[in-house]
Amino acid sequence: MKTSLNATHDPHLRSWVASANEAGTDFPIQNLPFGTYSRGPRHDRRIGVAIGDRVLDLRMAKLIDTDDMNELMAQSPAKMSALRAAISQGLAEGSARQAEWEGCLSRQYAVNLHLPCRIGDYTDFYTGIHHATTVGKLFRPDAPLLPNYKWVPIGYHGRASSIAVSGQQFPRPLGQTKGPNDEAPVLRPSQRLDYELELGVLVGQGNAMGEPVDMAQAEAHAFGMVLLNDWSARDVQAWEYQPLGPFLAKNFASTISPWIVTMEALAPFRAPFTRPEGDPQPLPYLDSPANREQGNIDVELEVWLETQAMRDAGVGPERLSQSSFRDAYWTVAQMLTHHTVNGCNLQPGDLLGSGTQSGARPEQAGSLLELTSGGKNALTLANGETRTFLQDGDAIILSAWCEREGFTRIGFGECRGQVLPAR
Amino acid sequence: MKTSLNATHDPHLRSWVASANEAGTDFPIQNLPFGTYSRGPRHDRRIGVAIGDRVLDLRMAKLIDTDDMNELMAQSPAKMSALRAAISQGLAEGSARQAEWEGCLSRQYAVNLHLPCRIGDYTDFYTGIHHATTVGKLFRPDAPLLPNYKWVPIGYHGRASSIAVSGQQFPRPLGQTKGPNDEAPVLRPSQRLDYELELGVLVGQGNAMGEPVDMAQAEAHAFGMVLLNDWSARDVQAWEYQPLGPFLAKNFASTISPWIVTMEALAPFRAPFTRPEGDPQPLPYLDSPANREQGNIDVELEVWLETQAMRDAGVGPERLSQSSFRDAYWTVAQMLTHHTVNGCNLQPGDLLGSGTQSGARPEQAGSLLELTSGGKNALTLANGETRTFLQDGDAIILSAWCEREGFTRIGFGECRGQVLPAR
Repeated sequence: MKTSLNATHDPHLRSWVASANEAGTDFPIQNLPFGTYSRGPRHDRRIGVAIGDRVLDLRMAKLIDTDDMNELMAQSPAKMSALRAAISQGLAEGSARQAEWEGCLSRQYAVNLHLPCRIGDYTDFYTGIHHATTVGKLFRPDAPLLPNYKWVPIGYHGRASSIAVSGQQFPRPLGQTKGPNDEAPVLRPSQRLDYELELGVLVGQGNAMGEPVDMAQAEAHAFGMVLLNDWSARDVQAWEYQPLGPFLAKNFASTISPWIVTMEALAPFRAPFTRPEGDPQPLPYLDSPANREQGNIDVELEVWLETQAMRDAGVGPERLSQSSFRDAYWTVAQMLTHHTVNGCNLQPGDLLGSGTQSGARPEQAGSLLELTSGGKNALTLANGETRTFLQDGDAIILSAWCEREGFTRIGFGECRGQVLPAR
Repeated sequence: MKTSLNATHDPHLRSWVASANEAGTDFPIQNLPFGTYSRGPRHDRRIGVAIGDRVLDLRMAKLIDTDDMNELMAQSPAKMSALRAAISQGLAEGSARQAEWEGCLSRQYAVNLHLPCRIGDYTDFYTGIHHATTVGKLFRPDAPLLPNYKWVPIGYHGRASSIAVSGQQFPRPLGQTKGPNDEAPVLRPSQRLDYELELGVLVGQGNAMGEPVDMAQAEAHAFGMVLLNDWSARDVQAWEYQPLGPFLAKNFASTISPWIVTMEALAPFRAPFTRPEGDPQPLPYLDSPANREQGNIDVELEVWLETQAMRDAGVGPERLSQSSFRDAYWTVAQMLTHHTVNGCNLQPGDLLGSGTQSGARPEQAGSLLELTSGGKNALTLANGETRTFLQDGDAIILSAWCEREGFTRIGFGECRGQVLPAR
């Protein structure tokens, strides 16, 4: 687990890009997240790094010679670290590169942000123990947390084709639903459409089939993290999910944020996770001293709702909840190692979802299913509107950042998606 | 649903490739399945069509101008049908193309067969009702077939990266397992390694996100079919699969056959499926007159086992079971339509597994789990060996063909995979 700090983390470092030095920016020079963008519909896709309110074209800046993020992601952590150091030096105040690189910048609001990479396979884990417990109670009041939860980093495969970048809009999905007293199911637009607040890990270097990645090497295979909204149709899910898990309840849309925050940028914000007294220790293949000492990452997470009425009234979105990835029951390294222990091959660009990140308190829940106790207790918003589940026109905005005394705050940008009326 | 017959199905048609006219060949001129091959490790990949024991290079024969199967798969059924007609005419006895095309043939045994296309997403359905019932009894004796089974074409997402072409060898996977009386799980090589006999549908034309495909159009999105072995570690599956479905129990390896048998080639072998008296009729979105009249396909399926002892003794593999896709509870069109009803987008090259195809009789089961009643009743092989689950060195060979009075038998080639010792 590589968490050592280097010059790129120096909180005194400032950039000649003025907006990168403003308090509250998600993209100070200590962040430098990677994304894929184009200057317009007729322009090629390029790899860029976010700096303040700008994006730096890495190829134009002569730092790389590819426009293919997956190719970049396959590089070794040492190479990526060297690239990040070069970007940091070039963007730092006083750099001799300033004159040359000023021409390599675009304004973020003026470019099109795309999916940062091709996502070959998408796996969704279930590391949020508070989410698993609360949802478990709704589906199985007698056995909320199944016996395997504290032993197995539970995960399942998701749909890669319907993942889109922040800004995704999708029609309310149709699906089969059946109430407990209905004689037969019906096909109709989902009445219990929900979001899920997640982080996603994007895989860097892959592993060959049949060759597991052990805990000591696991994070060397993680390129970085993004926000992930795992939209979910709860009524469809309840009827379809036995015995093989969620399918159409989830695969109509998933949204990720455009900027990949690297594991190196997250290094100052590691936070050890201690299992509660009485919980079993992980099996040896999921355990390591480094993982015990600094396995988790304190990423603060928020969910915001923007309704049509808010837009009409010109008021901003309302925060629904807040939590932290610090509380995840399984770490990034454990997810990666578990995924490969059977020989499964991961490839650059694969996405591993964290599962819904709910905090310990009910108001910290990362989904409406939890916040409304399965739709029984509607939320009342500041403008008087109420919600059990999402209404047409609702936009959900996820945001995330890391903050720690002695370090510069870094952020993830936003992950926004909107529900349109059913077709 | 396009099932009309044309000149390519004429049973009197013969090819100037002599081996294509031999009784029992999988690849007569009425089949013409597509695959991707190379003449050697240093040669480019090309798209070919199997004819007898040869493969025709479609680009060298000036029939197409791409080496990318996914590009070909995205074509309309009308274009693909025209291409197939041109191949059929050129390979037919008396064709003026013979002299030119003789130079475009390679011997199948001398070429490398690759995955026929890039598989973006892999979905596995569960259409084998006899399998679902028998396995359900083992996992849930009180409720073998869940209430949703006859309403919902149950499916879940699988892992695309670990799918390989026939010939795949893989180490026995490690995984967490826990017996009912064990205090804690252990990590160890799977002791209950199994195969699953399936067919796979490869998607041709895709659909845009948010745009469902209705039953009348569904088969126009199916390019063709392959054999699929969905290797399964039953002990891992039993411990991990609640509540989100199979994960590491399945994603270490999946094997498909190299030749895509087109829906057009399968047209003479349609077989209506009648739901048993008392079963609900499908919801309207999964129903159509064409689907009722000719929804299923009578593909005969077989599983063969070749052990190390058989190879040492120079004897051939032994047949474990036989079944037919005719008995599937859901059709290809229903799988496609259901998958997209929520707006999920399918892309050319996506793979839809049929789920294990077991027949109605116990000896027709498509997995060892079923054939041995969960490992309780070992099979005794002709050479005196016994099997509950797979042993190291065991190879499983799936085969499939279609036969019908008045038509020429067509086959799928073989889908072979082998278990190596755990690492």
